[in-house]
Amino acid sequence: MNDISLFDAIHSQRAVRNFSAEPVTDEAITTIMEAAVRAPSGGNRQRWSFLIIRNREVKRRLGEWYFDAWQEITVDMDFESPAAQPYRPSMLTHGMEDVPVLILACQERASDGNSPSSITSGSSIYPAVQNIMLAASALGLGTVITTLHTKHEQEVKELLSIPDNVDTAALIPLGYPADGRRFSRSRRRPLDEVVFHEKWGKTTKAQ
Amino acid sequence: MNDISLFDAIHSQRAVRNFSAEPVTDEAITTIMEAAVRAPSGGNRQRWSFLIIRNREVKRRLGEWYFDAWQEITVDMDFESPAAQPYRPSMLTHGMEDVPVLILACQERASDGNSPSSITSGSSIYPAVQNIMLAASALGLGTVITTLHTKHEQEVKELLSIPDNVDTAALIPLGYPADGRRFSRSRRRPLDEVVFHEKWGKTTKAQ
Repeated sequence: MNDISLFDAIHSQRAVRNFSAEPVTDEAITTIMEAAVRAPSGGNRQRWSFLIIRNREVKRRLGEWYFDAWQEITVDMDFESPAAQPYRPSMLTHGMEDVPVLILACQERASDGNSPSSITSGSSIYPAVQNIMLAASALGLGTVITTLHTKHEQEVKELLSIPDNVDTAALIPLGYPADGRRFSRSRRRPLDEVVFHEKWGKTTKAQ
Repeated sequence: MNDISLFDAIHSQRAVRNFSAEPVTDEAITTIMEAAVRAPSGGNRQRWSFLIIRNREVKRRLGEWYFDAWQEITVDMDFESPAAQPYRPSMLTHGMEDVPVLILACQERASDGNSPSSITSGSSIYPAVQNIMLAASALGLGTVITTLHTKHEQEVKELLSIPDNVDTAALIPLGYPADGRRFSRSRRRPLDEVVFHEKWGKTTKAQ
Protein backbone atom coordinates (compact mmCIF):
# COMPACT_ATOMS: atom_id res chain seq x y z
CA MET A 1 0.00 0.00 0.00
CA ASN A 2 1.27 3.45 -0.96
CA ASP A 3 0.94 5.23 2.35
CA ILE A 4 1.48 8.93 2.91
CA SER A 5 1.31 11.03 6.02
CA LEU A 6 -2.09 12.19 7.20
CA PHE A 7 -1.18 15.86 7.00
CA ASP A 8 0.36 15.49 3.54
CA ALA A 9 -2.86 13.85 2.38
CA ILE A 10 -5.04 16.54 3.94
CA HIS A 11 -2.95 19.47 2.75
CA SER A 12 -2.54 18.20 -0.83
CA GLN A 13 -6.19 17.32 -1.46
CA ARG A 14 -7.30 18.84 -4.75
CA ALA A 15 -10.39 18.44 -6.89
CA VAL A 16 -9.60 16.36 -10.00
CA ARG A 17 -12.13 16.46 -12.85
CA ASN A 18 -10.06 15.11 -15.74
CA PHE A 19 -8.67 11.61 -15.73
CA SER A 20 -6.30 9.50 -17.77
CA ALA A 21 -7.37 6.23 -19.37
CA GLU A 22 -5.18 4.26 -16.94
CA PRO A 23 -7.45 1.68 -15.30
CA VAL A 24 -8.13 1.56 -11.57
CA THR A 25 -7.56 -1.87 -10.06
CA ASP A 26 -10.03 -3.73 -7.90
CA GLU A 27 -7.37 -3.78 -5.17
CA ALA A 28 -7.31 0.02 -5.16
CA ILE A 29 -11.11 0.12 -4.87
CA THR A 30 -10.96 -2.31 -1.94
CA THR A 31 -8.30 -0.25 -0.15
CA ILE A 32 -10.40 2.88 -0.66
CA MET A 33 -13.64 1.27 0.50
CA GLU A 34 -11.97 -0.22 3.57
CA ALA A 35 -11.00 3.33 4.45
CA ALA A 36 -14.52 4.60 3.75
CA VAL A 37 -16.19 2.30 6.26
CA ARG A 38 -13.80 3.22 9.09
CA ALA A 39 -15.50 6.63 9.19
CA PRO A 40 -17.85 7.30 12.09
CA SER A 41 -21.63 7.21 11.70
CA GLY A 42 -24.39 8.10 14.14
CA GLY A 43 -24.84 5.31 16.67
CA ASN A 44 -22.42 3.30 14.50
CA ARG A 45 -25.45 2.36 12.40
CA GLN A 46 -23.54 2.44 9.10
CA ARG A 47 -26.63 3.07 6.98
CA TRP A 48 -24.32 3.51 3.99
CA SER A 49 -23.86 1.73 0.69
CA PHE A 50 -21.43 2.48 -2.09
CA LEU A 51 -22.06 1.70 -5.75
CA ILE A 52 -18.96 1.10 -7.83
CA ILE A 53 -19.80 1.94 -11.42
CA ARG A 54 -17.55 0.97 -14.34
CA ASN A 55 -20.20 0.22 -16.98
CA ARG A 56 -19.75 2.65 -19.85
CA GLU A 57 -23.42 3.03 -20.72
CA VAL A 58 -24.34 3.70 -17.07
CA LYS A 59 -21.57 6.31 -16.82
CA ARG A 60 -22.79 7.92 -20.05
CA ARG A 61 -26.34 8.30 -18.73
CA LEU A 62 -25.12 9.67 -15.39
CA GLY A 63 -23.02 12.09 -17.43
CA GLU A 64 -26.09 13.31 -19.33
CA TRP A 65 -27.91 14.13 -16.11
CA TYR A 66 -24.81 15.75 -14.67
CA PHE A 67 -24.44 17.85 -17.82
CA ASP A 68 -28.05 18.99 -17.66
CA ALA A 69 -27.66 20.18 -14.05
CA TRP A 70 -24.30 21.77 -14.85
CA GLN A 71 -25.73 23.70 -17.80
CA GLU A 72 -28.46 25.10 -15.60
CA ILE A 73 -26.15 26.48 -12.91
CA THR A 74 -23.45 27.74 -15.28
CA VAL A 75 -25.66 29.45 -17.85
CA ASP A 76 -24.58 32.94 -16.77
CA MET A 77 -21.13 32.06 -15.56
CA ASP A 78 -17.88 33.56 -16.81
CA PHE A 79 -15.54 30.57 -16.83
CA GLU A 80 -12.51 32.86 -16.90
CA SER A 81 -13.22 34.15 -13.40
CA PRO A 82 -11.35 32.35 -10.60
CA ALA A 83 -14.60 31.77 -8.67
CA ALA A 84 -15.93 29.78 -11.63
CA GLN A 85 -12.91 27.48 -11.72
CA PRO A 86 -14.75 24.56 -10.07
CA TYR A 87 -17.45 24.81 -12.75
CA ARG A 88 -15.32 24.86 -15.87
CA PRO A 89 -16.05 22.26 -18.54
CA SER A 90 -14.28 18.99 -17.79
CA MET A 91 -14.51 15.30 -18.40
CA LEU A 92 -17.46 15.32 -15.99
CA THR A 93 -19.47 17.55 -18.32
CA HIS A 94 -18.05 16.23 -21.60
CA GLY A 95 -17.07 12.60 -21.27
CA MET A 96 -18.27 11.14 -17.97
CA GLU A 97 -18.27 7.73 -19.74
CA ASP A 98 -14.47 7.98 -19.96
CA VAL A 99 -13.99 8.41 -16.21
CA PRO A 100 -12.58 5.04 -15.09
CA VAL A 101 -14.82 4.58 -12.03
CA LEU A 102 -17.76 6.37 -10.47
CA ILE A 103 -18.55 5.81 -6.80
CA LEU A 104 -22.09 6.67 -5.70
CA ALA A 105 -22.29 7.09 -1.92
CA CYS A 106 -25.78 6.30 -0.60
CA GLN A 107 -27.49 6.39 2.76
CA GLU A 108 -30.61 4.66 3.98
CA ARG A 109 -33.07 7.01 5.65
CA ALA A 110 -33.73 6.84 9.36
CA SER A 111 -36.52 4.45 10.28
CA ASP A 112 -39.16 7.20 10.39
CA GLY A 113 -38.92 7.15 6.61
CA ASN A 114 -39.04 10.91 6.20
CA SER A 115 -36.90 12.84 3.81
CA PRO A 116 -33.74 14.24 5.29
CA SER A 117 -34.73 17.69 6.49
CA SER A 118 -31.71 19.16 8.18
CA ILE A 119 -28.03 19.57 7.56
CA THR A 120 -27.26 16.82 10.07
CA SER A 121 -28.77 14.17 7.79
CA GLY A 122 -25.39 14.18 6.04
CA SER A 123 -23.33 13.79 9.20
CA SER A 124 -23.05 10.01 8.86
CA ILE A 125 -22.11 9.77 5.18
CA TYR A 126 -19.78 12.65 4.27
CA PRO A 127 -17.05 11.64 6.74
CA ALA A 128 -16.90 8.35 4.79
CA VAL A 129 -16.83 10.30 1.52
CA GLN A 130 -13.89 12.32 2.80
CA ASN A 131 -12.11 9.08 3.73
CA ILE A 132 -12.66 7.87 0.15
CA MET A 133 -11.06 11.00 -1.27
CA LEU A 134 -8.10 10.97 1.13
CA ALA A 135 -7.45 7.26 0.63
CA ALA A 136 -7.63 7.70 -3.16
CA SER A 137 -5.02 10.45 -3.03
CA ALA A 138 -2.66 8.15 -1.11
CA LEU A 139 -2.86 5.77 -4.09
CA GLY A 140 -2.17 8.60 -6.55
CA LEU A 141 -5.80 8.65 -7.63
CA GLY A 142 -7.84 11.81 -8.16
CA THR A 143 -11.41 12.46 -7.05
CA VAL A 144 -13.86 15.27 -6.52
CA ILE A 145 -17.07 15.36 -4.50
CA THR A 146 -20.08 16.10 -6.71
CA THR A 147 -23.80 16.38 -6.00
CA LEU A 148 -25.20 17.72 -9.30
CA HIS A 149 -26.69 14.31 -10.13
CA THR A 150 -29.34 14.96 -7.46
CA LYS A 151 -31.26 17.19 -9.88
CA HIS A 152 -32.15 13.87 -11.54
CA GLU A 153 -32.05 11.73 -8.43
CA GLN A 154 -35.23 9.79 -9.19
CA GLU A 155 -33.91 8.79 -12.61
CA VAL A 156 -30.51 7.88 -11.14
CA LYS A 157 -32.20 5.71 -8.53
CA GLU A 158 -34.35 3.96 -11.11
CA LEU A 159 -31.38 3.28 -13.38
CA LEU A 160 -29.41 1.73 -10.51
CA SER A 161 -32.35 0.00 -8.74
CA ILE A 162 -31.80 2.06 -5.60
CA PRO A 163 -34.66 1.65 -3.08
CA ASP A 164 -36.99 4.56 -2.29
CA ASN A 165 -35.77 4.84 1.28
CA VAL A 166 -32.16 5.44 0.21
CA ASP A 167 -30.69 8.85 -0.61
CA THR A 168 -27.78 9.43 -2.96
CA ALA A 169 -25.32 11.70 -1.18
CA ALA A 170 -22.40 12.09 -3.59
CA LEU A 171 -21.14 10.95 -6.97
CA ILE A 172 -17.37 10.62 -6.81
CA PRO A 173 -15.41 10.17 -10.06
CA LEU A 174 -12.18 8.26 -9.56
CA GLY A 175 -9.13 7.84 -11.75
CA TYR A 176 -5.53 8.85 -12.31
CA PRO A 177 -5.33 12.60 -12.94
CA ALA A 178 -5.09 13.51 -16.64
CA ASP A 179 -2.43 16.09 -16.01
CA GLY A 180 -0.36 14.22 -13.45
CA ARG A 181 -0.54 14.86 -9.76
CA ARG A 182 -0.75 18.47 -8.72
CA PHE A 183 0.70 19.69 -5.49
CA SER A 184 -0.24 23.35 -5.73
CA ARG A 185 -1.95 24.62 -2.62
CA SER A 186 -5.70 25.05 -2.76
CA ARG A 187 -7.09 28.54 -2.17
CA ARG A 188 -8.65 28.95 1.23
CA ARG A 189 -9.89 31.78 3.39
CA PRO A 190 -7.44 32.57 6.21
CA LEU A 191 -8.10 30.88 9.55
CA ASP A 192 -8.82 34.15 11.36
CA GLU A 193 -11.86 34.67 9.14
CA VAL A 194 -13.43 31.33 9.93
CA VAL A 195 -12.27 30.37 13.43
CA PHE A 196 -14.07 32.16 16.25
CA HIS A 197 -13.43 32.01 19.98
CA GLU A 198 -16.28 31.50 22.44
CA LYS A 199 -18.75 33.59 20.39
CA TRP A 200 -19.66 34.10 16.75
CA GLY A 201 -17.44 36.70 15.09
CA LYS A 202 -14.83 36.88 17.85
CA THR A 203 -11.60 36.21 16.02
CA THR A 204 -9.19 36.71 18.90
CA LYS A 205 -8.87 34.57 21.95
CA ALA A 206 -9.25 36.29 25.33
CA GLN A 207 -6.77 35.24 27.97
CA MET B 1 3.98 18.14 14.35
CA ASN B 2 3.18 14.56 15.35
CA ASP B 3 2.41 13.07 11.99
CA ILE B 4 1.07 9.59 11.38
CA SER B 5 0.25 7.75 8.21
CA LEU B 6 -3.07 8.45 6.56
CA PHE B 7 -4.21 4.84 6.74
CA ASP B 8 -3.16 4.49 10.39
CA ALA B 9 -5.20 7.59 11.18
CA ILE B 10 -8.23 6.33 9.26
CA HIS B 11 -8.10 2.79 10.61
CA SER B 12 -7.58 3.79 14.24
CA GLN B 13 -10.31 6.44 14.42
CA ARG B 14 -12.47 5.82 17.48
CA ALA B 15 -15.17 7.82 19.22
CA VAL B 16 -13.85 9.31 22.48
CA ARG B 17 -16.43 10.61 24.95
CA ASN B 18 -14.35 10.82 28.14
CA PHE B 19 -11.38 13.13 28.43
CA SER B 20 -8.55 13.80 30.86
CA ALA B 21 -8.00 17.23 32.42
CA GLU B 22 -4.82 17.70 30.38
CA PRO B 23 -5.21 21.01 28.54
CA VAL B 24 -5.25 21.34 24.77
CA THR B 25 -2.82 23.93 23.47
CA ASP B 26 -3.68 26.73 21.07
CA GLU B 27 -1.04 25.31 18.72
CA ALA B 28 -2.92 22.01 18.58
CA ILE B 29 -6.15 23.86 17.79
CA THR B 30 -4.42 25.76 15.00
CA THR B 31 -2.98 22.57 13.49
CA ILE B 32 -6.42 20.97 13.60
CA MET B 33 -8.20 23.96 12.10
CA GLU B 34 -5.62 24.29 9.32
CA ALA B 35 -6.49 20.70 8.45
CA ALA B 36 -10.23 21.44 8.63
CA VAL B 37 -10.15 24.17 6.01
CA ARG B 38 -8.20 22.07 3.49
CA ALA B 39 -11.38 20.01 3.04
CA PRO B 40 -13.35 20.51 -0.17
CA SER B 41 -16.56 22.52 -0.27
CA GLY B 42 -19.05 23.08 -3.08
CA GLY B 43 -17.67 25.62 -5.55
CA ASN B 44 -14.87 26.19 -2.99
CA ARG B 45 -17.25 28.62 -1.29
CA GLN B 46 -16.10 27.70 2.23
CA ARG B 47 -19.32 28.80 3.91
CA TRP B 48 -17.97 27.37 7.16
CA SER B 49 -17.11 28.78 10.54
CA PHE B 50 -15.80 26.99 13.58
CA LEU B 51 -16.41 28.12 17.16
CA ILE B 52 -13.73 27.13 19.65
CA ILE B 53 -15.34 26.95 23.08
CA ARG B 54 -13.33 26.75 26.29
CA ASN B 55 -15.54 28.83 28.58
CA ARG B 56 -16.76 26.63 31.40
CA GLU B 57 -20.20 28.20 31.77
CA VAL B 58 -20.84 27.96 28.01
CA LYS B 59 -19.78 24.31 28.03
CA ARG B 60 -22.07 23.65 31.01
CA ARG B 61 -25.10 25.08 29.22
CA LEU B 62 -24.33 23.17 26.02
CA GLY B 63 -24.05 20.10 28.24
CA GLU B 64 -27.52 20.70 29.68
CA TRP B 65 -29.08 20.80 26.22
CA TYR B 66 -27.08 17.77 25.13
CA PHE B 67 -28.24 15.90 28.25
CA ASP B 68 -31.87 16.76 27.56
CA ALA B 69 -31.68 15.40 23.99
CA TRP B 70 -29.75 12.34 25.17
CA GLN B 71 -32.33 11.53 27.86
CA GLU B 72 -35.09 11.63 25.27
CA ILE B 73 -33.47 9.16 22.86
CA THR B 74 -32.11 6.79 25.52
CA VAL B 75 -35.21 6.55 27.73
CA ASP B 76 -35.94 2.95 26.68
CA MET B 77 -32.39 1.91 25.94
CA ASP B 78 -30.55 -1.00 27.56
CA PHE B 79 -27.04 0.38 27.97
CA GLU B 80 -25.64 -3.14 28.35
CA SER B 81 -26.45 -4.00 24.75
CA PRO B 82 -23.57 -3.52 22.29
CA ALA B 83 -25.79 -1.44 19.97
CA ALA B 84 -26.29 1.06 22.80
CA GLN B 85 -22.57 1.51 23.36
CA PRO B 86 -22.41 4.89 21.59
CA TYR B 87 -25.20 6.15 23.87
CA ARG B 88 -23.80 5.14 27.24
CA PRO B 89 -23.45 7.86 29.90
CA SER B 90 -20.19 9.72 29.49
CA MET B 91 -18.58 13.03 30.20
CA LEU B 92 -20.78 14.43 27.41
CA THR B 93 -23.93 13.63 29.39
CA HIS B 94 -22.48 14.16 32.87
CA GLY B 95 -19.74 16.76 32.79
CA MET B 96 -19.58 18.51 29.43
CA GLU B 97 -18.08 21.49 31.30
CA ASP B 98 -15.00 19.35 32.01
CA VAL B 99 -14.32 18.61 28.33
CA PRO B 100 -11.26 20.75 27.54
CA VAL B 101 -12.53 22.16 24.23
CA LEU B 102 -15.74 22.06 22.22
CA ILE B 103 -15.65 22.83 18.51
CA LEU B 104 -18.95 23.86 16.93
CA ALA B 105 -18.85 23.46 13.14
CA CYS B 106 -21.23 25.88 11.41
CA GLN B 107 -22.30 26.55 7.85
CA GLU B 108 -23.91 29.58 6.30
CA ARG B 109 -26.98 28.76 4.24
CA ALA B 110 -26.98 29.10 0.48
CA SER B 111 -28.01 32.54 -0.71
CA ASP B 112 -31.64 31.54 -1.24
CA GLY B 113 -31.91 31.60 2.55
CA ASN B 114 -33.97 28.44 2.79
CA SER B 115 -33.46 25.77 5.37
CA PRO B 116 -31.29 22.89 4.27
CA SER B 117 -33.72 20.40 2.81
CA SER B 118 -31.68 17.53 1.47
CA ILE B 119 -28.84 15.32 2.54
CA THR B 120 -26.47 17.21 0.26
CA SER B 121 -26.68 20.34 2.42
CA GLY B 122 -24.05 18.66 4.60
CA SER B 123 -21.69 17.83 1.75
CA SER B 124 -19.56 20.95 2.26
CA ILE B 125 -19.13 20.81 6.03
CA TYR B 126 -18.74 17.18 7.13
CA PRO B 127 -15.58 16.57 5.08
CA ALA B 128 -14.02 19.38 7.15
CA VAL B 129 -15.40 17.79 10.33
CA GLN B 130 -13.76 14.51 9.37
CA ASN B 131 -10.46 16.35 8.80
CA ILE B 132 -10.79 17.80 12.32
CA MET B 133 -11.21 14.34 13.82
CA LEU B 134 -8.36 12.77 11.82
CA ALA B 135 -5.97 15.64 12.56
CA ALA B 136 -6.85 15.51 16.26
CA SER B 137 -6.02 11.81 16.37
CA ALA B 138 -2.59 12.51 14.86
CA LEU B 139 -1.94 14.75 17.87
CA GLY B 140 -3.12 12.07 20.31
CA LEU B 141 -6.38 13.91 20.90
CA GLY B 142 -9.78 12.26 21.04
CA THR B 143 -13.01 13.48 19.46
CA VAL B 144 -16.45 12.30 18.51
CA ILE B 145 -18.96 13.79 16.09
CA THR B 146 -22.19 14.77 17.86
CA THR B 147 -25.40 16.40 16.65
CA LEU B 148 -27.71 16.09 19.70
CA HIS B 149 -27.36 19.80 20.45
CA THR B 150 -29.58 20.50 17.41
CA LYS B 151 -32.66 19.65 19.49
CA HIS B 152 -31.95 23.02 21.14
CA GLU B 153 -30.36 24.69 18.14
CA GLN B 154 -32.18 28.01 18.56
CA GLU B 155 -30.99 28.32 22.15
CA VAL B 156 -27.46 27.31 21.18
CA LYS B 157 -27.42 29.94 18.44
CA GLU B 158 -28.70 32.64 20.79
CA LEU B 159 -26.12 31.78 23.44
CA LEU B 160 -23.30 32.01 20.91
CA SER B 161 -24.66 34.94 18.84
CA ILE B 162 -24.85 32.77 15.72
CA PRO B 163 -26.75 34.49 12.88
CA ASP B 164 -30.11 33.15 11.69
CA ASN B 165 -28.74 32.16 8.28
CA VAL B 166 -26.12 29.85 9.79
CA ASP B 167 -26.71 26.18 10.68
CA THR B 168 -24.84 24.30 13.37
CA ALA B 169 -23.68 21.02 11.85
CA ALA B 170 -21.71 19.28 14.61
CA LEU B 171 -20.50 19.75 18.15
CA ILE B 172 -17.10 18.09 18.50
CA PRO B 173 -15.63 17.60 21.99
CA LEU B 174 -11.85 17.57 22.00
CA GLY B 175 -9.32 16.46 24.58
CA TYR B 176 -6.85 13.77 25.55
CA PRO B 177 -8.68 10.47 26.08
CA ALA B 178 -9.42 9.70 29.75
CA ASP B 179 -8.41 6.09 29.37
CA GLY B 180 -5.36 6.53 27.18
CA ARG B 181 -5.36 5.96 23.50
CA ARG B 182 -7.22 2.92 22.30
CA PHE B 183 -6.20 1.02 19.24
CA SER B 184 -8.89 -1.63 19.21
CA ARG B 185 -10.58 -1.97 15.86
CA SER B 186 -14.02 -0.41 15.50
CA ARG B 187 -16.88 -2.72 14.61
CA ARG B 188 -17.97 -2.41 11.01
CA ARG B 189 -20.19 -4.28 8.61
CA PRO B 190 -18.15 -6.30 6.11
CA LEU B 191 -17.42 -4.65 2.77
CA ASP B 192 -19.44 -7.15 0.76
CA GLU B 193 -22.59 -5.97 2.55
CA VAL B 194 -22.11 -2.32 1.69
CA VAL B 195 -20.18 -2.21 -1.59
CA PHE B 196 -22.25 -2.93 -4.69
CA HIS B 197 -21.14 -3.26 -8.30
CA GLU B 198 -23.00 -1.47 -11.09
CA LYS B 199 -26.41 -1.92 -9.46
CA TRP B 200 -27.92 -1.76 -5.99
CA GLY B 201 -27.59 -5.07 -4.15
CA LYS B 202 -25.09 -6.65 -6.55
CA THR B 203 -22.24 -7.67 -4.28
CA THR B 204 -20.07 -9.40 -6.84
CA LYS B 205 -18.31 -7.87 -9.76
CA ALA B 206 -19.05 -9.28 -13.21
CA GLN B 207 -16.04 -9.74 -15.43
